[in-house]
Amino acid sequence: MARAPQVLKGMRDFLPEQMLLRQHVLSTFRGVFERYGFEPIETPVIEYLETLTGKYGEDEKLIYSFQDRGERNVGLRYDLTVPLARFVANHRNDLTFPFKRYHIAPVFRADRPQRGRYREFWQCDADIVGTKSMMADAEVVSVWIDALSAINMPGFVVHINHRKLLMSLAEVAGVPDDQTPTIHRAIDKLAKIGEDGVLKEMQSNGIPEDAARRVLDLVSITGEPGEVFDELARRLAGNSMAEEGISEMRSLFDFLDKMGADSSHYTLDLTLARGLDYYTGPVFEAMSVDANIGSLGGAGRYDGLVGMFSGEDLPATGCSLGLERIFDVIQEKNLVAAPSTVSKVLVTVFNGDTIGESLALVGELRRAGVESDIYSGEKFDLRRQLQYANRKGIPRTLILGPDEIQTGQVIVREMSTGDQQSVDRANVAEAIHSALRADRAAD
Amino acid sequence: MARAPQVLKGMRDFLPEQMLLRQHVLSTFRGVFERYGFEPIETPVIEYLETLTGKYGEDEKLIYSFQDRGERNVGLRYDLTVPLARFVANHRNDLTFPFKRYHIAPVFRADRPQRGRYREFWQCDADIVGTKSMMADAEVVSVWIDALSAINMPGFVVHINHRKLLMSLAEVAGVPDDQTPTIHRAIDKLAKIGEDGVLKEMQSNGIPEDAARRVLDLVSITGEPGEVFDELARRLAGNSMAEEGISEMRSLFDFLDKMGADSSHYTLDLTLARGLDYYTGPVFEAMSVDANIGSLGGAGRYDGLVGMFSGEDLPATGCSLGLERIFDVIQEKNLVAAPSTVSKVLVTVFNGDTIGESLALVGELRRAGVESDIYSGEKFDLRRQLQYANRKGIPRTLILGPDEIQTGQVIVREMSTGDQQSVDRANVAEAIHSALRADRAAD
Repeated sequence: MARAPQVLKGMRDFLPEQMLLRQHVLSTFRGVFERYGFEPIETPVIEYLETLTGKYGEDEKLIYSFQDRGERNVGLRYDLTVPLARFVANHRNDLTFPFKRYHIAPVFRADRPQRGRYREFWQCDADIVGTKSMMADAEVVSVWIDALSAINMPGFVVHINHRKLLMSLAEVAGVPDDQTPTIHRAIDKLAKIGEDGVLKEMQSNGIPEDAARRVLDLVSITGEPGEVFDELARRLAGNSMAEEGISEMRSLFDFLDKMGADSSHYTLDLTLARGLDYYTGPVFEAMSVDANIGSLGGAGRYDGLVGMFSGEDLPATGCSLGLERIFDVIQEKNLVAAPSTVSKVLVTVFNGDTIGESLALVGELRRAGVESDIYSGEKFDLRRQLQYANRKGIPRTLILGPDEIQTGQVIVREMSTGDQQSVDRANVAEAIHSALRADRAAD
Repeated sequence: MARAPQVLKGMRDFLPEQMLLRQHVLSTFRGVFERYGFEPIETPVIEYLETLTGKYGEDEKLIYSFQDRGERNVGLRYDLTVPLARFVANHRNDLTFPFKRYHIAPVFRADRPQRGRYREFWQCDADIVGTKSMMADAEVVSVWIDALSAINMPGFVVHINHRKLLMSLAEVAGVPDDQTPTIHRAIDKLAKIGEDGVLKEMQSNGIPEDAARRVLDLVSITGEPGEVFDELARRLAGNSMAEEGISEMRSLFDFLDKMGADSSHYTLDLTLARGLDYYTGPVFEAMSVDANIGSLGGAGRYDGLVGMFSGEDLPATGCSLGLERIFDVIQEKNLVAAPSTVSKVLVTVFNGDTIGESLALVGELRRAGVESDIYSGEKFDLRRQLQYANRKGIPRTLILGPDEIQTGQVIVREMSTGDQQSVDRANVAEAIHSALRADRAAD
């Protein structure tokens, strides 16, 4: 074969250095989720196609689907929410409710690949199923804040709105329900195009000017959340949908405050209009103040979805982090220090006669808990071995030639400086351990 | 929808308790691989079909394949070795050789599902690419031994043979090369069906009795590996293929000894005949002495495969652990203690008026690093909350009703005994930390 096949467009290999960063971030996220009592689950990559269809609207065409050998129609996992709903319906009797789970796994979309958008990408979701309590919504907002804080994400804010408030806007404007999406699309752009822009967009889509102004006045109320809720309650008095939304939002913000969630990381945003098809209560979107970063994930309460499978009422709420975007930002901004290699030391091999001594040393170091590589190439050229350590970023090499073996010594070479130091063979493991302690203290 | 769709046959969901065990085992394996300087990589689930075809012989029909929306023929990852070969060919210039990688990921086979055999299952491979040195083979055998030891796998032994020794058997027997597979199939059963059985099987497949006896005499040589190699060298003198095999095996066993690999966990097995299509040097199989457990994984040296993609000679060797089998054994034999839940404590909620106090407490515990759940159900029935903790296996619950809030106390309840103890609200985090320390000390 003259030329090796590549990976498909929109799919990626990850080299060790990228993987070490990804593993570090995922392990950080797992730690945060588990500190909140969220527990891991896993579902298959392949599902019956009927499990996936009828859930994603027009985007359904992006599902990777095919017939398997048994002529079953199957599809590849498109997100982690629909599999969760199917999972809960299948395992109802083995789960304890409210059921808190996190799931970190790749999903597949036959989308047009472009910068930052992939056909196979990882999602990271935390959801609570089986309760309508706003405590659950406070849990998912707070775990999100802690997860993004744990990776040093700069200046992010979780924007919070409520679907029932959004739905009441059409009533407020006095226009038919089917114009609600037009209103949402317009107000969602308020920060970008300003009041005049929003007014124009609504009018050009057939909303009368006075109706558009009523909507705009409402979503432009400013102040502390409590004040905004009071003002909304006055203006929307008698609108039962709005009253329910306001009451739930009051609880949610109160709970976040009581939990000690950092209020600089969440905000009421009456213009946030995401995910209407799906959500039934609070909706969330994590955004960076850095415009180049943008959205870091979105989510909300979806009380109907699990019931589609189980036939029973199982309310649910959750959050979903856009992992690929987060990895990109971490790399661009250098947010997290992950090592470039796993090995703390490379044991070199002087020549064919000294392989045994080098193997004995590397075995001893590993048993002492030091991540240790040994050069296993066929040629025992020391320069080549030091180059191997340098290219991989291994900080120290150990050299034991016939002279050192004779005198019971090992040379420890600091790769960053080239400094070399002789250490008694019996004390090598301890010398490396103490060098590693010094490295950590210097960090 | 009256009845929820299920998962496909041969595919599985994993509940939190299973996932916690799986994550614990995978994290143990990662730790062992990294102690040896193996580094993680990841490849896509979907590959061009041409990458996968022509590598698996007759089993190729088990590849999940389909046309994507762009009418490209694609297939789901069938193992981790072929993707490695494609990866190395694609990223040659970004890798440092010898390239040591591990890869833990699900693979897909449209096989007939049966007990212990799944259509989606996880593999766990460690390979070294770019060296013919037997040091690399010693590394993969030793990392296998350490990985299986780290999960307390009882009585396992890595059986080692060499393809060149296996190939020389036809010459020894004086039969045509195309009878080699017949010989291998027969001797592979020696432990099971005995010498007579093996002789009969060879004869019934057309191998003359004296030829069959010559083969059997050879593979029945016993003794320390060094003695066996000496005896083989005498008997096979002049057979250049056998001589190469013997010389490499001497190095491999010498290197394992020098590294300090535990010799009770590896053995020379001249009857081991796995994977002939693929392997070019040493072949390995990890087996449990417990017949109910059987094979835990297999592997060997495959110097030709990477070259199929890169057009260059890139020798490689590796090992592959059968993760699903290992998980099954761990569960059956209770080899590894993994917790049933992530949470160390459940904060209960007394009533609607005390939610804030409970949220403040759970927030504080989490910030103090204690994995803490809070009951977020809609009903504040204490019995129901204790049941939630019991079902999940959360060891302690915290109770703070109006009386405790008044007096600045929190009740800590030990779920295993029902013992309750009052603790000053200010000291709860420290009390839980010290209880956890006591739990660990008692383990």
